[in-house]
Amino acid sequence: MGEGLALRWSPFHEIIVGSRKLDKARDAVRKYTDKLDKAGRDYQIFGLENRDAAKISDVVVLSIPYKHVISTVNDICDSFDDQIVISPVTAMKREGDHFVYAPSKKSCVALEIKEILPETVKLISAFHTLPAKGLADVSNPVGGDVIICGDDDEAKKTVFSLTKLINNLRSLDGGPLSASYMAESLVPMLINLAIRNKLGDLSIKFV
Amino acid sequence: MGEGLALRWSPFHEIIVGSRKLDKARDAVRKYTDKLDKAGRDYQIFGLENRDAAKISDVVVLSIPYKHVISTVNDICDSFDDQIVISPVTAMKREGDHFVYAPSKKSCVALEIKEILPETVKLISAFHTLPAKGLADVSNPVGGDVIICGDDDEAKKTVFSLTKLINNLRSLDGGPLSASYMAESLVPMLINLAIRNKLGDLSIKFV
Repeated sequence: MGEGLALRWSPFHEIIVGSRKLDKARDAVRKYTDKLDKAGRDYQIFGLENRDAAKISDVVVLSIPYKHVISTVNDICDSFDDQIVISPVTAMKREGDHFVYAPSKKSCVALEIKEILPETVKLISAFHTLPAKGLADVSNPVGGDVIICGDDDEAKKTVFSLTKLINNLRSLDGGPLSASYMAESLVPMLINLAIRNKLGDLSIKFV
Repeated sequence: MGEGLALRWSPFHEIIVGSRKLDKARDAVRKYTDKLDKAGRDYQIFGLENRDAAKISDVVVLSIPYKHVISTVNDICDSFDDQIVISPVTAMKREGDHFVYAPSKKSCVALEIKEILPETVKLISAFHTLPAKGLADVSNPVGGDVIICGDDDEAKKTVFSLTKLINNLRSLDGGPLSASYMAESLVPMLINLAIRNKLGDLSIKFV
């Protein structure tokens, strides 16, 4: 997911790729700039350690698996001031041959993350249902709807604008952050439907 | 929802409209046949009391609001033998300015209904996300995806066929009946998104 967003936003914004280790961040940047060179796109991308990346960014996307997101955010908590932080994170577990939505504590992952971030951060929940592979292939006109939840209207507007930069995506206001479970729980459903109906990477559209 | 399905299926199957009172069933039939006459469609529709309607039908659709569905099915339980019963029912409650999914006992409405039906009945969960108004307007080429959950493969196939009779709808296998919460919980989400984004009657499509 992080790769796709970096590639799609790179012609319009300065992109900082964060990682636990600087080397890893720089490896990712090399991979992305290769792709962007081949696609003939402009970019300004560089790599930093997570704590430095978070500190100097206006908008931070937590493109981290559920099992690592809480510890990662905890580790770099001092880096946050009043940034916009976007969570595309969901929580799933396998039950027999299908996946179920399974946040561990709060009613949704976004509220769990909110609890450990400084109150001044504007946390927005978005992008859960975007297909990561399709997004990372910049020649692919990725489509579908993006459900955006959050409690700060200005921050929401920013995320609406960022979504608009990715062709064919439509932003939908999903309500307050507490409604984020709606968007998060769509992910296991999409995976179940894709597997059972042999449909490949699915995203969602409201018609 | 019941009206829409009756109108859409009437050229292909004999339709029986059930109601608590025979008069009400017949009133509904008159309304439906007026519409079908105007649309120039063939039909075989008649009205019966719920218990008689359920007894002689091969496929029964429980087009009943959540708060009445358990008592209604309990009242007419003797009418069921080994029919296919379809539940498009979901459970919602209002929290502030948005709706949340709220089944009262079991993890989903379909499992709650299954508990009171004879074991020989093949219960299928489907059609939750179809827009009732759009469906009842036969001139409207209603589209979207139908998620079908159930534990009997033959019965599932029948519901796939019935779905195919409604132009532009696509059936998707949603897995076992226990996965029905996925489809049921989409309804409050669709309503929230429709209200908040001023989008009118929404249905869902996986792309």
